[in-house]
Order: sequence, then structure tokens, then C-alpha cells
Amino acid sequence: MTYCVAISVNAGLVFASDSRTNAGADQVATYGKLYTFGRPGDRQMAILAAGSLATTQEAMVQLNSDINEQAPTNLMNVASMPDAAEYLGQVVYNAEQKHGAEVRGAGFSVDATFILGGQIGTEAPMCLLVYPQGNWIETAPQTPFHQIGETKYGKPILQRVITADTDLDEVARCALISMDSTMQGNATVGPPVEVLCLPAGNLSFSGYLHLDADDPYLTELKRAWDASVRQASQQTPRFEWGPFPAGERFH
Amino acid sequence: MTYCVAISVNAGLVFASDSRTNAGADQVATYGKLYTFGRPGDRQMAILAAGSLATTQEAMVQLNSDINEQAPTNLMNVASMPDAAEYLGQVVYNAEQKHGAEVRGAGFSVDATFILGGQIGTEAPMCLLVYPQGNWIETAPQTPFHQIGETKYGKPILQRVITADTDLDEVARCALISMDSTMQGNATVGPPVEVLCLPAGNLSFSGYLHLDADDPYLTELKRAWDASVRQASQQTPRFEWGPFPAGERFH
Repeated sequence: MTYCVAISVNAGLVFASDSRTNAGADQVATYGKLYTFGRPGDRQMAILAAGSLATTQEAMVQLNSDINEQAPTNLMNVASMPDAAEYLGQVVYNAEQKHGAEVRGAGFSVDATFILGGQIGTEAPMCLLVYPQGNWIETAPQTPFHQIGETKYGKPILQRVITADTDLDEVARCALISMDSTMQGNATVGPPVEVLCLPAGNLSFSGYLHLDADDPYLTELKRAWDASVRQASQQTPRFEWGPFPAGERFH
Repeated sequence: MTYCVAISVNAGLVFASDSRTNAGADQVATYGKLYTFGRPGDRQMAILAAGSLATTQEAMVQLNSDINEQAPTNLMNVASMPDAAEYLGQVVYNAEQKHGAEVRGAGFSVDATFILGGQIGTEAPMCLLVYPQGNWIETAPQTPFHQIGETKYGKPILQRVITADTDLDEVARCALISMDSTMQGNATVGPPVEVLCLPAGNLSFSGYLHLDADDPYLTELKRAWDASVRQASQQTPRFEWGPFPAGERFH
């Protein structure tokens, strides 16, 4: 399984990913799922990948090959982030088609889903979710993040905290808490955790984290968050119990 | 969809359920999913239901019928909570079999899953999850709750807060926050929310809540929790960003 999240706020973009892949519970491996492409001062993009590892690897090889061979369309010459998403979607769809019939016939899925975020020139930064079918959606002020993989455990913290004004460091800490909730809920999501920050207008990544399972910061963040949540729970508003109801469901 | 949770701590049991059912996004209805059976001073049980509404209703009718007709095995004469779970499992399985072939043939599921919690006589309270196949599991000190339906959004708060020593009022508030996270994540989980409390050794339910969508307490709890989580997020330990990495994934 996988958990990746990208969050778009006024100050820029933050990307986070786990590194665990599995095919069944007894075939577990570690692969980074975060890729970057860019030219400082011109464009910067990050890609997060979930789904079939064969498809995501093939797609990333194709992206690099298209850049190196200066293909008519590649990530270094697309004019906009939607154009980049359209191109990525086509590359992914082609990769899925290549062995799709055979793989589906064996009972597996070739589907892969991506998050693409970045900034090109003076355009505003954008964060897009690219579906296995090649189409895509962007974030919105009311929906400022995309998640792929195991998305549910880590969603409430993002929904409760992230606003357009949240600063990038807090966005990154929220992404790590979201990741911690997910790793606790699903044993096939696991470290190392990677986090990457792209401030708006920077056109270069300003910071990166690579946190192994025993990283002291990850341990401290989890301990502090658990303590905060327990304290918050003790301080929630009280209620008065009502009487036991009468009714046909209550015997 | 459905979200129900039952939590077992030293002080007793707390049950919570939503009331929304749906067959597709355009066929939404309200049904309570919490049922109780008992005789004060002798035994008290609560049942939470998820899955096929046809199956859960048929099973509940059968439970009542067996009590009224004084069947050889019914909830009022079973000797233990595991016996009650075994009996409930058999009733559910029989209900699923009744129209199972026809319903599956039409592309739907007859499966239903239940949580059964309660206390009989001087036995310790128990909380059991009954699967559609009729088998069951109980909670454990390290796993003090069962969830059915849409379980993931509401799990992190329970995992971070609930211990064997949490008092029943706080357990109930946590269950409501877990419910709020779930209702925010899945539009087919919705109010009214019901909460029921069975203190250990009481052999009668001590309190009940029925909260409609516009209930002032539900609104206040959500507002307070959102504020607490945002404050906790601002106070999480800081980290220092590392440098942008070199490596084959980073171009």
C-alpha cells in the first residue's frame, strides 16, 4: 500500500510520502515514491506515485527518457502545470496499456495514480491528481490537498487544520501527523517518510526531510501529538446524559 | 453506509452509531442502528448493526420473536456473552441465506456485521464483533474497541486516546469525535447520532444521547475539537529542514 499527500496553501506546496510497497503481506519492500523534475529559476515539479509499482516505474523512466531525448512534449518544455498533468496522464495510460491485458488476466491491477505539484515560471503553483485513466483534477480553496493510496486515516487532521493561510512548516508537520495516523492504521504504509517543500515563487525546493522509522523527530512528534490529543480529549465540552429511551428498538 | 463503534474500558461499555442508510447516493434514509435487549438486574445487551438493512431488520425481528416465543435459545436465556454472540451469528447467517442467492444474483450483498456488547449476571462485560459468516471476536486490552461500517476516518482518535482507565464520559466524547471525523469524511454516514452507556456491574443502561444534525452540543463539540486540534498543531515540535537530496529520483 501507499500513502502520499500534497497540500497547496498560499505560501506554496508540501509533499509527503511513505516508502513501503507490498504484494501480499509477505512481499514487502522499500521504494521511494517521490520524484522531482525541474530547473531552478524556470520550473519545479514533484510527483508522488501510488498503485502498480511496475506502472509507476515505467512511467518515471519514460518521463526521464522524454527529457533526455528532448521529445516534442516533456516536463521541461510544457507550458503549464495542466499541460504537465495531461502529458503525465498520457504517459501513465500508455504504461498501463503495455502489459495491461496480461496483468489483468493474472488477476492484478496495472492502475497507478499520481499527484503532480509544482510551478512553472510566473504561473501560480498548482497541485493536480492524475487518475489511472489519464484525466486529472486540481485542488481548490475548499479542498486544498490531494491524497493517494490509503487516504482515510490521515484525512481528519488535514480537514480540521489546513487553511489557505497555514504556513509551510505547519503544513509539513500536519502532513507528518497525517502520515503517522495512516502508518498506525495500515501496516503496509511505512517509513522512511519523505517530505518536500516548494515555496510559491521560489522555483526551487527549499527543504527536504527523510525520516527513518527510528528517527528521533518522528518519535518525538508522535509522542507530543498523542499527548496533545489526549489532553484535548479531556478538555472537550461536557454533556448531560439523557434518560434511557422507550421505543421499538429498546427492550 | 454506516459507522458504529463500541468501546470497552474498565468502567464499562459505550456504544455509538449513526443513522444514515443508503442504496446509491440518491436513496438515502434514516434508520436507527442501535438495539437493546435486557432485564434490569439480570442482563443488558446492546447491538449495533451495519450492512444489508434487509438482513439486519430480519435478524432483529428474529431475536425478538425468539424471546417472545421463549425459544430454547434466546438473548434472555443465554448463559454468557460468547453464547449470545454465537446465537446472534447463527440468526444473522440464517437471515443472509434466506434470500442470499437471489440478492447476490442481482448484484447486491446480503452481508451484515454486528457489534454485540453487554453483561450477563456477575460475568465481566464483553464487547464482540459478529461477522456475516456467524463467527465472532472479542476486544482485548490492546484493542479495546470494535468498529463496523466506515471505520478508518474515526480510528486515529480512538487509538491515541482510549486506554483501559479512560472514564465512560470521556469514552463517549471520544466516540462522538470519532463519529464527527467519519461524518466529515463520508457523506453517507450521518445523524442522528445515538450514544449509550453501560457501566460495568450496573446491569442497566445509565445514560443515552440522541443528537440530531443541529444539536447544539454536537456543534459545540465539533467547534471545540477543531480549535483544540488547530492549537495542538501549532504547538507540535519543530524540525529543521534538510538539504535537497541528490539521487536518481531527484532531477
